[in-house]
Amino acid sequence: MDMTLSLSTQVIEPWHNLQENTPLVQCITNTVVQSFTANILLAAGASPAMVDIPGESADFARVASGLLINLGTINVSHQLSIPEAAHAAFEAGTPWVLDPVAIGALKTRTRIAHELLQYRPTAIRGNASEIIALAGGEGGRGTDATASVEAAAESATQLAREYGSVVAVSGPVDLITDGETSIECANGHEILTRVTGAGCSLGACVAAYLSTHENPLIATAAAHATFEVAAEKAQAKSQGPGTFAVNLLDELSLLTADSLQESVKISQR
Amino acid sequence: MDMTLSLSTQVIEPWHNLQENTPLVQCITNTVVQSFTANILLAAGASPAMVDIPGESADFARVASGLLINLGTINVSHQLSIPEAAHAAFEAGTPWVLDPVAIGALKTRTRIAHELLQYRPTAIRGNASEIIALAGGEGGRGTDATASVEAAAESATQLAREYGSVVAVSGPVDLITDGETSIECANGHEILTRVTGAGCSLGACVAAYLSTHENPLIATAAAHATFEVAAEKAQAKSQGPGTFAVNLLDELSLLTADSLQESVKISQR
Amino acid sequence: MDMTLSLSTQVIEPWHNLQENTPLVQCITNTVVQSFTANILLAAGASPAMVDIPGESADFARVASGLLINLGTINVSHQLSIPEAAHAAFEAGTPWVLDPVAIGALKTRTRIAHELLQYRPTAIRGNASEIIALAGGEGGRGTDATASVEAAAESATQLAREYGSVVAVSGPVDLITDGETSIECANGHEILTRVTGAGCSLGACVAAYLSTHENPLIATAAAHATFEVAAEKAQAKSQGPGTFAVNLLDELSLLTADSLQESVKISQR
Repeated sequence: MDMTLSLSTQVIEPWHNLQENTPLVQCITNTVVQSFTANILLAAGASPAMVDIPGESADFARVASGLLINLGTINVSHQLSIPEAAHAAFEAGTPWVLDPVAIGALKTRTRIAHELLQYRPTAIRGNASEIIALAGGEGGRGTDATASVEAAAESATQLAREYGSVVAVSGPVDLITDGETSIECANGHEILTRVTGAGCSLGACVAAYLSTHENPLIATAAAHATFEVAAEKAQAKSQGPGTFAVNLLDELSLLTADSLQESVKISQR
Repeated sequence: MDMTLSLSTQVIEPWHNLQENTPLVQCITNTVVQSFTANILLAAGASPAMVDIPGESADFARVASGLLINLGTINVSHQLSIPEAAHAAFEAGTPWVLDPVAIGALKTRTRIAHELLQYRPTAIRGNASEIIALAGGEGGRGTDATASVEAAAESATQLAREYGSVVAVSGPVDLITDGETSIECANGHEILTRVTGAGCSLGACVAAYLSTHENPLIATAAAHATFEVAAEKAQAKSQGPGTFAVNLLDELSLLTADSLQESVKISQR
Repeated sequence: MDMTLSLSTQVIEPWHNLQENTPLVQCITNTVVQSFTANILLAAGASPAMVDIPGESADFARVASGLLINLGTINVSHQLSIPEAAHAAFEAGTPWVLDPVAIGALKTRTRIAHELLQYRPTAIRGNASEIIALAGGEGGRGTDATASVEAAAESATQLAREYGSVVAVSGPVDLITDGETSIECANGHEILTRVTGAGCSLGACVAAYLSTHENPLIATAAAHATFEVAAEKAQAKSQGPGTFAVNLLDELSLLTADSLQESVKISQR
């Protein structure tokens, strides 16, 4: 991490790179949020590819700019395609993100999440309960976090050090760590919890940003900052969760380096 | 049912309870409407959990506040997870809703719908053709009702008595019956038939409301009333089906006890 | 094709027929775009039926007004239901559309697309890379076209002649050919590439329109013209891709014969 530049300045470069390079982001994600996730990626400047079937997912993971694996609704097809894709990404050096949705009490996804750690995700994104459960602790209630970000800090550091991953814990103030350096992102808005797929599509943005900077910590922070600055701008012109989700797509596509730098609230922890 | 209070007053209490308790609603629903359904539940004040895979659906059904089973696109995973979840809900006493989408002419879903009746759904919601088909009569054309609500009244009463279920028949004026008492809800708007997932997400709202009142007839009526009052408010500010679907989410989240009581058109039949 | 009437006049009749007859359109389409596709069909005046499971898809294909088969996310269920439905549509004379999403580099879907050609799709819709790959050439990058419409013209003609299909190549100016006559549609807007499911739901509109005119070339052209005229009107009142997708649904539902004829840019090539 370049200590001579402020963090707010450092997250602009990944944003620029993404606009220029339109990274191809493979998503094996739950069927609830596929559409919103694809639209978020398009609005953010990336190119989504929902290539999620066995027999194709590994080949695509070798050539994609980034890969998201999200465990929200791991149907029969996804249970086959997910390990194939993670393995291929690991071997090919494709950066990939693990989003361990609702692990903890739910057995199948918890087992799969732990098995996937052998392929050393470049980044892991979840709420506090999910991160704690992935590190071996107790999970939450469905997709709701029942623990605070602070309570997940130790689990995040542990996972980051053990698997060489950047770990991002979503909450009112997000915590992003590589096990040595930790960053806080204080943008975002409570209304993000009232829209399905907000966290899931943030995970997809992380997968998009990982190809934009050599340091995955900065790339992950940039994904959070851009997504959440856009969310703040969207909230300011919305009447409720319906208009908010629509405006979030608009605002993501309208972001500029200046508006981003002006609004981002990011700091070393 | 409390005969000393008007029905319009009685549906306010479930709405209040839902806002306070944020029931956790498990949805095993078709992939077309998962996103809209989750957003409707969030806007209504509930917490959606789309836990729909074999090996997890039964465990979750035991702890959820309510369960929706919707037969719209019963892929290989859903054909395994649905009976597991219904059985577990029945055993654990979790209230659950059956939405027998497009049964009648389509063989697989018709067979599954009839098999599920052994687990005695707390509520059944469908259009007139679906309710008639579930009771053993002729079905409709895809998801379009080809019969009137009135024509389904006898089937609804029969199902309600045989399985101890509340049966709700959606239409211009909805009919909701427990086999003894019948309620009509005259809110709603024709534009609901021009948006995919309107009926399906109403079914999810019923699952959310079942935990809010000891009488499932009142709870089911409250779900219909709140959903359809919000639909009327949304329609008033929309230019077409696109803006309507967005505004419906906003209006559901903006409902108040006063605005609800003022607009609800509900009566004993 | 009636040469005594301008093409812009000829595409009005299919639009009128669709409004009057509400064709029942079966969609076996990818889970990313199912919701948007269903809403587009409803807004366009058709009745969507996402009947996509093995054991039901063939029966429904025999009675539907049209069938769309889209290979975007061919999970285990779709790999079984798709050939069944195509075979049944072919035998029953139900017009059907093949959308060979992202074929070329991806092996499973490429094999399936080629196998489906034996059932002689009434229309084939794709971007230039997909059409070239279907005719036996090199494909593109995920869902992005890497070839120009012009470069796909020969492949389109070849496919049209070999399988008796109308072939539509989407791009800045769409090319639609039956192997003898070719039509260009110059409506549409670049923003359609920033919204997921735009091309896929256009394919569904083609399936809806095929039942509206005896000449599938005119029907396919009418589908493109109405969809893209609505897109232009939506773009004029949108701030970004979020509001655009919402307004597209409104504008499709608000189209009139006059506004369509006034805006359509269609010509013989």
